This record gives sequence, C-alpha cells and structure tokens, in this order.
Amino acid sequence: MDSTKLTIAVDAMGCDLGPSVVVDGALQASEAHPGVRLLLVGQEDVIRYELARHKENPRISVLHATEIITPDEVPTTAIRQKKDSSLVIGLRAVKAGDASGFVSAGSTGALLSGATIIIGRTKGVERPALGTPIPTKKGFTLLLDCGANMDCKPSYLYQFGQIGAEYMQKALGVTNPKVGLINVGAEDEKGNVAAKEAFVLLKESGLNFVGNIEGREISDGVVDVAVCDGFTGNILLKFMEGFAKSMMGIIKEELKSSAISTIGALLAKGAFGRVKKRFDYREVGGAPFLGLKSLVVKAHGSSDAFAMKNAILKCIDFEKAKIEV
Amino acid sequence: MDSTKLTIAVDAMGCDLGPSVVVDGALQASEAHPGVRLLLVGQEDVIRYELARHKENPRISVLHATEIITPDEVPTTAIRQKKDSSLVIGLRAVKAGDASGFVSAGSTGALLSGATIIIGRTKGVERPALGTPIPTKKGFTLLLDCGANMDCKPSYLYQFGQIGAEYMQKALGVTNPKVGLINVGAEDEKGNVAAKEAFVLLKESGLNFVGNIEGREISDGVVDVAVCDGFTGNILLKFMEGFAKSMMGIIKEELKSSAISTIGALLAKGAFGRVKKRFDYREVGGAPFLGLKSLVVKAHGSSDAFAMKNAILKCIDFEKAKIEV
Repeated sequence: MDSTKLTIAVDAMGCDLGPSVVVDGALQASEAHPGVRLLLVGQEDVIRYELARHKENPRISVLHATEIITPDEVPTTAIRQKKDSSLVIGLRAVKAGDASGFVSAGSTGALLSGATIIIGRTKGVERPALGTPIPTKKGFTLLLDCGANMDCKPSYLYQFGQIGAEYMQKALGVTNPKVGLINVGAEDEKGNVAAKEAFVLLKESGLNFVGNIEGREISDGVVDVAVCDGFTGNILLKFMEGFAKSMMGIIKEELKSSAISTIGALLAKGAFGRVKKRFDYREVGGAPFLGLKSLVVKAHGSSDAFAMKNAILKCIDFEKAKIEV
Repeated sequence: MDSTKLTIAVDAMGCDLGPSVVVDGALQASEAHPGVRLLLVGQEDVIRYELARHKENPRISVLHATEIITPDEVPTTAIRQKKDSSLVIGLRAVKAGDASGFVSAGSTGALLSGATIIIGRTKGVERPALGTPIPTKKGFTLLLDCGANMDCKPSYLYQFGQIGAEYMQKALGVTNPKVGLINVGAEDEKGNVAAKEAFVLLKESGLNFVGNIEGREISDGVVDVAVCDGFTGNILLKFMEGFAKSMMGIIKEELKSSAISTIGALLAKGAFGRVKKRFDYREVGGAPFLGLKSLVVKAHGSSDAFAMKNAILKCIDFEKAKIEV
C-alpha cells in the first residue's frame, strides 16, 4: 500500500439496488476526493462490467470475492461459512492494512459480527454500536446504538455513552460533549431495568452526563450524544425517516386542497426542498460502528448512488480526522 | 346513581397546570354533552373556588379528596399510603358504580397501579396497557403499550395485541383489525428476546397478525394496532410529538428565509394550521388503559383546558360505545 494515499475498501455487493449503484457512488466519491484510493470488493467480472460503463479511473481497483452475504442469513454463521464473501474479504483488507476503512450497505448484523471478529473491539468496549447523526433543531445529535445490539446490559449502555462522546470529541471537535440517556421520564428512577442501572453508571462516569432525556426532547438537540439500546434506537431512527416522509406528504396534500395554498406552495418550493434535504438519510449516507479498532461505516441497505457516494465521503472524512474509534 | 345518566369521574388535581384547567375543560365537555354528569374529584374548596368563576352547572358535582399524588412518587407506595387522594377516590367511585369511567392527567404509573388494584384487570390480561391513537397517512394506528409496562414478557406483548384488536373492533368498529409487532426488521427472526418470542405467540394467536413492522412503516398506517413494550412505545410517542413540533419549526424557519417563500407561507397558512392540528396531541386528549374492567383514560400530564375537554369527551365516547375494555 502506498502510504501517502488513503485507501478505503467498499463492499460492492451489499446494496439492495445492486453493484451498479455502488460503482456509480464510488466513482462520484473518487471525483470529489482525487487523493483517495478506493478498493471495490466483490465479484470481479460484475464490478469490471459496471466500471466499463464509465471513463477509466486509475484510483479505483477491484478486490475479488466470490460470495455474497444476504440480509436474511444468520450473521455469525454467514461470517464463519462465507469466508470468500465481499464483506469478509473487505474487512480482512482493513485488518491487513491494505485499506484504512470499510464501507458496506450489507447486513448490519453480519457487518457487526464480521468487524468484531476480524477487526476487533477497542479495549474496554464489550459491544461496538452503530452511531447515526440525526437532525435536530440545533444541528444533529449522535444516536447510538441504532441497531447493532438488541438486548443491552447496563454496561453496554454506559460504554455507548463513552464511545459516543469520544467520537464527537475526536472526530467532530465537540468540547465536553453532552451525553443523555433516552428514557421515559426525566426523573432518575425512570425506565426499564437496563436504563435504571445504566443511569447510575453514567452518572458516576465522569462524562458530561445530563441525565435522562425524554423522547420529545431529542429533536430539540439538548444533547450531543443520545444513548439507548439498539432495539429502541433502530425503531426510533426508522420511525423518524418514515414520519418525516409521511408528514411532508400530508403537508403536500393539505397545500393542494385550495387554489390559494397551492400558489403558496409553489412560492415556497425552495424552502420545502431544503427541509426535505435536511431529513433525507441519503445526505448522511453512512453511520460509523463505534468501538472498533478500525473504521467501518454502515451505509443504508437501500442506498442509491448518491447515498453510497456520501457514505464513502463520510468514511474518508472520518479517516482524515485521524480518529481511532 | 341515576341510571339514565352517564357519569364520568374526573381527577381535578392531577394536571401539571393545576385544577383550574381541569375545571375549565370539564365545563367545556359538559356543554358539548349535556346528557352526561361529571364528578370532579379533589380538594372541595379548591374545586368550588374554580367553579365559582363560571356559570353554575347542575350536571357537575364535587367528590372531596384531601390528598394529591405527585408524578415523582413511587406508584404502588403512593396508592397504598394516600388512600384519600383524588386518584384513589376517583377510582373507588368507578368501582362502587358511582361513575362509569375515570379521567386523570396524573402520574401514569400511579393511575395504572391504582386502576389494577382497585378496578381490576380483565380476565386473561396480565398487564393493562396504555393505548394511544397516533396519526398516520391513512388516519391513525393504535400504539400500545405507550408507557404502562417497562420490561415486558412476551405474553404481555401478545395480550397487548389481543386487547388492542378487541378495542379497535368494539369501540371503533374496525373489522378484523390488522395487528403488527414493532420490530427492527421485517423478517420473522428479528428483534430482542421479548419481540422474538412474542412474534411466535402472535403468529399462532388467531389474530389478524401481519408480522413485524419496522419503524418507518408505522406512519404509513399499515396496521390498525401496533404492539411494543411500554419503554419503546413511550419514547416513540413522545419523540413523534417533539419531532413534529421541531419539523414545523424548521419549515417555518426555512419559509422565512426569503421574501418569496414568506409570501408563499402566508398563502398556505390555512393548510399549515390543518397539518399542525393533525399532529397536536391535545386534539386526541386522552389515551385509554386497555385490559381493565372499567374505563380509565389517561390525559396528557401537561394538558390545558382544551386537551382536558377532549380527554373527557373521549371517555364519554368510549363509554357510549358500550365497550368493556
């Protein structure tokens, strides 16, 4: 590996929409960052076929992998059995130092299992977590875990607070990031068993822990890091996506209900476009797994080329910030 | 009790904004439903003082209770120790047959504990649940549990499906209501331990169970009843409230960013008002506890008079539909 150049491995096979959108996204990302090398991992003939549709790009190379892990496979079994899958080969490239980071739109569970086994966890972290920046009134809040860990011990939640705060500080330069525990009430004693015990651990942690935050406070942007188990976080994140879309739909519908408001809507079109953009997951592109020795970014399963491009750019930005997450 | 008249007991002391908004809301509800009697439960002198500000209403009477249960008290202890609280006295009035239903904006936990102990559960129901109608593209979906039960056994989740479906059928006339389990993926094997086991129970239940539904599908209105534990449900419900508010704020901000879009916004004002109304919890007013022998409606803790009126009207409507929940 040429040490002067940053190399990012990209899973060409993990996307719901197929390898063509990954290749398109990679080419777009490469144009935006000419100093970076991209390593497309997957079935070589398929990737070469897709690449042939575009102008040659010497900064993009292919790493052959025969197998594909699908979202319905049991993660640990898939990782063990499909040793020649794009996901496993890509993670091995990072482990071997042939790439600094890995981007995949494949199965969250398989990516987590694979990364934990192949790349390994940061010292002191029992379970890596998926951290997603979600839009708030003030900018964004890092929500974690967004789906990597379903049933969480209190110690996991406590560590999510730690790795989330570390990431906000090192990668995004937030001084003394505020950490909150997502819960059903502001009082100390609220919540399920795990949240109650995690509250005590977080309170004594030395982190800038502001206490429990209720669902309705999340969008106000009262914290930099919002901690919850991966079951709640995943449902919350996806609910937000669906709700924003459905709310925009309802607004559109109401605006069309009279001639005057239709004219109003036309005049306000630019503003609506900006709002839509702010809530579009494709703009964010990818979410990092925190608590691993190298960087692994999970792209949305249904990513298009634009979302893949942004996920790859995110990985490059993270890597450039020289964070060790 | 005059059997020709429906009587609803109302907790005059449970509201964050004080007894005056409860009294105002009760008077407004009484005007809308002159055939119904309301029993205001709480400190008689305080309630009479508030009532004296209005025109006399013979259909409103007062039931004296000296104590008040606050949201920070441990529910079971509060119910045991404060036997003369508005919450306990109100529930006892229902148990004694002096009222058909009870509305309170007080502590969710205390209301649940009190209702379970004093009124009792429906046969076969281990834990009553709080069901809240949430707005969707198609109308609304009943979300339960919204905060009554934090750590849920799979059997609780299964029963939430049953009591939710029964309620939709009997109270709202929905034929063969579709029941979904809120989860992190559509596949059968997804979720935390409780959700995985509940899936199996629901699948074999004979209910119109459509399987797991992901967060992003909830707002599409794909089910009539969406089941989850009270920790997730409460966070989801409150997140929706906060997110809708913050999204409307962001839209407003963007609309003000140019002269043209400001004009557009003015022309579309009516449409925005209707959207806001659709996502305003005060319009719904209250959520029923399902799985109890009599009707208990939980109003939002921060209800104003308008929200209290709607909660009381909801209780009247439920009772008129002659459902036994």
